Amino acid sequence: MKAYVIKDTFGIDSLIFTERPEPIPGPNQLLIKLRAVSLNARDLMVVKGVYTPIKPLPLIPVSDGVGEVIAVGEGVTRVKIGDRVASIFMQKWLAGKLTAEKAQSDLGGSQDGMLVEYAVLHEDGVVHVPEHLSDEEAATLPCAGVTAWHALITEGDVKAGETVLLQGTGGVSMFALQFAKIAGARVIVTSSSDEKLERVRQLGASDEINYKQTPNWDEKARELTGGVGLDHIMEVGGAGTFAKSLRAVRLGGQISLIGVLTGMAADLNIVPIVQQNVRVQGIHVGHRDMFEDMNRAIAQHQLRPIVDRVFSFDETPEAFEYMEKGAHFGKICIRF
Amino acid sequence: MKAYVIKDTFGIDSLIFTERPEPIPGPNQLLIKLRAVSLNARDLMVVKGVYTPIKPLPLIPVSDGVGEVIAVGEGVTRVKIGDRVASIFMQKWLAGKLTAEKAQSDLGGSQDGMLVEYAVLHEDGVVHVPEHLSDEEAATLPCAGVTAWHALITEGDVKAGETVLLQGTGGVSMFALQFAKIAGARVIVTSSSDEKLERVRQLGASDEINYKQTPNWDEKARELTGGVGLDHIMEVGGAGTFAKSLRAVRLGGQISLIGVLTGMAADLNIVPIVQQNVRVQGIHVGHRDMFEDMNRAIAQHQLRPIVDRVFSFDETPEAFEYMEKGAHFGKICIRF
Amino acid sequence: MKAYVIKDTFGIDSLIFTERPEPIPGPNQLLIKLRAVSLNARDLMVVKGVYTPIKPLPLIPVSDGVGEVIAVGEGVTRVKIGDRVASIFMQKWLAGKLTAEKAQSDLGGSQDGMLVEYAVLHEDGVVHVPEHLSDEEAATLPCAGVTAWHALITEGDVKAGETVLLQGTGGVSMFALQFAKIAGARVIVTSSSDEKLERVRQLGASDEINYKQTPNWDEKARELTGGVGLDHIMEVGGAGTFAKSLRAVRLGGQISLIGVLTGMAADLNIVPIVQQNVRVQGIHVGHRDMFEDMNRAIAQHQLRPIVDRVFSFDETPEAFEYMEKGAHFGKICIRF
Amino acid sequence: MKAYVIKDTFGIDSLIFTERPEPIPGPNQLLIKLRAVSLNARDLMVVKGVYTPIKPLPLIPVSDGVGEVIAVGEGVTRVKIGDRVASIFMQKWLAGKLTAEKAQSDLGGSQDGMLVEYAVLHEDGVVHVPEHLSDEEAATLPCAGVTAWHALITEGDVKAGETVLLQGTGGVSMFALQFAKIAGARVIVTSSSDEKLERVRQLGASDEINYKQTPNWDEKARELTGGVGLDHIMEVGGAGTFAKSLRAVRLGGQISLIGVLTGMAADLNIVPIVQQNVRVQGIHVGHRDMFEDMNRAIAQHQLRPIVDRVFSFDETPEAFEYMEKGAHFGKICIRF
Repeated sequence: MKAYVIKDTFGIDSLIFTERPEPIPGPNQLLIKLRAVSLNARDLMVVKGVYTPIKPLPLIPVSDGVGEVIAVGEGVTRVKIGDRVASIFMQKWLAGKLTAEKAQSDLGGSQDGMLVEYAVLHEDGVVHVPEHLSDEEAATLPCAGVTAWHALITEGDVKAGETVLLQGTGGVSMFALQFAKIAGARVIVTSSSDEKLERVRQLGASDEINYKQTPNWDEKARELTGGVGLDHIMEVGGAGTFAKSLRAVRLGGQISLIGVLTGMAADLNIVPIVQQNVRVQGIHVGHRDMFEDMNRAIAQHQLRPIVDRVFSFDETPEAFEYMEKGAHFGKICIRF
Repeated sequence: MKAYVIKDTFGIDSLIFTERPEPIPGPNQLLIKLRAVSLNARDLMVVKGVYTPIKPLPLIPVSDGVGEVIAVGEGVTRVKIGDRVASIFMQKWLAGKLTAEKAQSDLGGSQDGMLVEYAVLHEDGVVHVPEHLSDEEAATLPCAGVTAWHALITEGDVKAGETVLLQGTGGVSMFALQFAKIAGARVIVTSSSDEKLERVRQLGASDEINYKQTPNWDEKARELTGGVGLDHIMEVGGAGTFAKSLRAVRLGGQISLIGVLTGMAADLNIVPIVQQNVRVQGIHVGHRDMFEDMNRAIAQHQLRPIVDRVFSFDETPEAFEYMEKGAHFGKICIRF
Repeated sequence: MKAYVIKDTFGIDSLIFTERPEPIPGPNQLLIKLRAVSLNARDLMVVKGVYTPIKPLPLIPVSDGVGEVIAVGEGVTRVKIGDRVASIFMQKWLAGKLTAEKAQSDLGGSQDGMLVEYAVLHEDGVVHVPEHLSDEEAATLPCAGVTAWHALITEGDVKAGETVLLQGTGGVSMFALQFAKIAGARVIVTSSSDEKLERVRQLGASDEINYKQTPNWDEKARELTGGVGLDHIMEVGGAGTFAKSLRAVRLGGQISLIGVLTGMAADLNIVPIVQQNVRVQGIHVGHRDMFEDMNRAIAQHQLRPIVDRVFSFDETPEAFEYMEKGAHFGKICIRF
Repeated sequence: MKAYVIKDTFGIDSLIFTERPEPIPGPNQLLIKLRAVSLNARDLMVVKGVYTPIKPLPLIPVSDGVGEVIAVGEGVTRVKIGDRVASIFMQKWLAGKLTAEKAQSDLGGSQDGMLVEYAVLHEDGVVHVPEHLSDEEAATLPCAGVTAWHALITEGDVKAGETVLLQGTGGVSMFALQFAKIAGARVIVTSSSDEKLERVRQLGASDEINYKQTPNWDEKARELTGGVGLDHIMEVGGAGTFAKSLRAVRLGGQISLIGVLTGMAADLNIVPIVQQNVRVQGIHVGHRDMFEDMNRAIAQHQLRPIVDRVFSFDETPEAFEYMEKGAHFGKICIRF
């Protein structure tokens, strides 16, 4: 079967399209014929060699895949042949507290990922996906979807009437927009593109801020809440924006730390965190129970994930290059 | 000024329309010119003498009132003359844990209530109400609105994608329907009237059960959840329905106990509560912080409380008689 | 190997000591040589045929066992040969929400239990036990220990300075006493025996009430809290005591429903639950994460479960008869 | 009456001992004859002019005072003449969410503080203190005590069996040690002084780390938890230690940010917060309900706050100078 492999060296150019033996499912395992995967910023970091920890090379990258179960090993009860399933990011984080063992079961990092025609996973490591979604849409869920759900719903406990600020229009933010809306919150989105902000408005944002035109978006956002500050901020920008988030959040509010797009470190003044009783919550994807709760809500509300562009399996390097440009709106997918 | 008083004896017939001296606000107090009140089942119980504890007679009944602040005592800072405010049910339950002292500050029970032309309240005992609401609509909030919010949002923590079952179409249930919807839940409503169920559907319920046609509504409700059971049931019927609620709720689900319409005691088999890890949460209105959080959500979503019928101040006894019949859909109000 | 089986009919007299083939562990399974089991009220109900649901007979009863791992199937990673492990009550409730599938994995009920010389369990269905405990002590943990932990610590969230009331001196209550103490709570215990209350005092209870001498123990308990009422009551008595618990608990307090010793149904006045904002939380044992959290606390504090009496495997029927008398203080065990 | 005032300029040398008119309590206010105050790092920052925001000068500093109620204004019901009470840090934060209005009611900052012979406070702004405490001990509670309680018990929800790491031996840390112990946690303390660590051990710490001898205290601390990491870290040191705290905390653990002793800003790598699902919770003292819950626990466990040294009112500048040296163990008090 075909697979993409990071073999000896890192970099998009070093992604090698290769032949691998088709795997065979053992007890409690499934053989999945992949139909679509989605890419995450983390996958790009893995390919470029700036994400740790990962298993020794060679490594098949990418965590998020959707496919059809075409064979099952002995003792499988959770799924059956013909089911459409998605992989879960950490194969062993099914529920409850995160442990080191669970954390080191991430696909396309600690173990081989989904850029393959056929994958074998433990039956515990997959979920059924909502029927109304296309394969590509379903493939966007495991990482970006679960991260947004974990941040806003499970940990953030966003309530109707609260205000949420989202940074940018990447995959996690667009899920967060949809989840915040169905949870009854008012959503403010920042972006550097008026065109993207226009699309965000159509998706239900109540207010948009172009941070190029309004560099002090924190002041503007606070103003939009009548001076009170945001209940919840999804901090996807990282160090470059965190200080502003601290100025925009309300007393006792929450900032969910999601990603690190603009840099790894911050010259961070931590006094406001103390004086304002702010909670800063790191969010690293989530567990299977969250995934299933999210799927139920997606099905009930017939939500459709935002897919920016779909590449073919052959175009995988182009898909990574496209992601690197950072101009996408929503998710980038690959169809097998 | 005019007031309705329970003077010596209980009963709707004994409600006396009488003259009282106009009160004067002391330090930190407000003088409120009432514009509208709403009635609750509890108010009817007070009038009929079956609600305890209450202060010694004479008592001015009714907890929920909305009016204009027309004078303020020394030191008032939370409101100003001309503001439109609603009373809070327990005048001293502003936030945090309920205590005996706070519990014994309920209007129209432990102290005189709102069936008066002018009332004096402590500035802590009122909230501003959403601007888009009429006076009658705003008058429905303090008891029924806050109870539904407390049950579903504050304590119940209803999440998007969950299922909620509501019993009947009274004031609390219709608020619960609206709040469950904006929180992203799927709502099932029971009633004995197809006409009411039709209206409930228009308000956003996904499924309705006529419990006269389907006496085993618990089985039907469970079926509607794919056999899993309800995440949350608002038990407003009391003892007559509780056993069925226990059969309809999911493992680990929550039943909020709200009212006691069908009886005071239940021959209750408590084994299912244990075996199913069910939470039964008594809900007795709520505190001011809940009220303000609710108001923010109502304003943001431009919700409109369901007012069944508005009586004039003179028709107050007729309003209580109308409530006693139990045929209303939503709230019964009195306009001054 | 030897096993006790409920074969055709129920009753302690019908427990049959029989020969069974020694089981062989499959993939991810363990072979455990049992060293000790403990009995729970539920096990007695199973033997007497008054507990539902259970699998079709024949059934090997008893959920709680401790033993040594003497063989492991393919792929086992959580334990190794020579480890001492205890069974978990519901073999599939590892963490997170309870589901029907997880609920129907209880040992000695939905599937065969621990009254055997050798048992095969999935590696997920066991935990390591604190080293300082004897086998009998460790065998008391899976049901009674986890139930008390779930009720007071996981769900009850008992805080330092709070007051907890425990009913009687059975296994769950004595665990609850120890857990409440290490969590910093003040503990009041009721019993009909001054001798048992004397032992309870030595274990750290601050106050004891002999409910034979003080039938209105609810009033006495409330008095001991300065009139405020208890923060938390462990209701193990069932219907006969529930009404009193409702009178003893504070506004907004919690009653954990654990067992049903005095009867299956209650003529229950539910109005106080509403008016006092009380939470009634059904507790049906708990999941593996709770078990491991509990074990950590037991090890750290070097707690020792209270073992009333140890029987030999041959004396199993006598052990059940002893339990039936209800005079025990703490747990009843069987040593292999 | 006598008072210390920051009049025109900041600095310990500029603290002026002056005469002020004795205040008179208005409606709902109390006149308190001060008996003792305690100093906090924040008070020193106020005196030195590096704490914001504060009211315009002149300002009477210090938030924590204990005294006797010697007169009450009209309508006072919470306390009576002769009661011993302590001030609460934010006079208007009684319960529930923090708001800007509540935040700007801090004593010795937004309004005059307790370095006076007689103070007038609203009856809502005080609590009764445990009887077994001396005046000086009671004076340590409002800021340091409530901060530690808020961090570990209210927000941190420390459970029996968990591990807590405390930095240094200042006032907050020594309260945290006592609270963590009664909540059943294992406590590890860092300090640069073996002598202080010896005293910490006597107070119940299970492990101590001299961070001068063991600069990589994070590794040592992790090792002490069997490699898992700390459940909870009280970060009182600020930027200089935060990176180490992030390395010592467990996956999904909590770091409570309390103070800023070693600096205002941090060159902070925030990636570990994300990857480890860490919660960083800012803690800015707490509300009155927390204070009363804490007092109940202190009374029940007969805890005694650690008082390092008591100065006389005349020696107030010396007390601040002593604090500036930073060699104290526990709290610094002033007796009137």
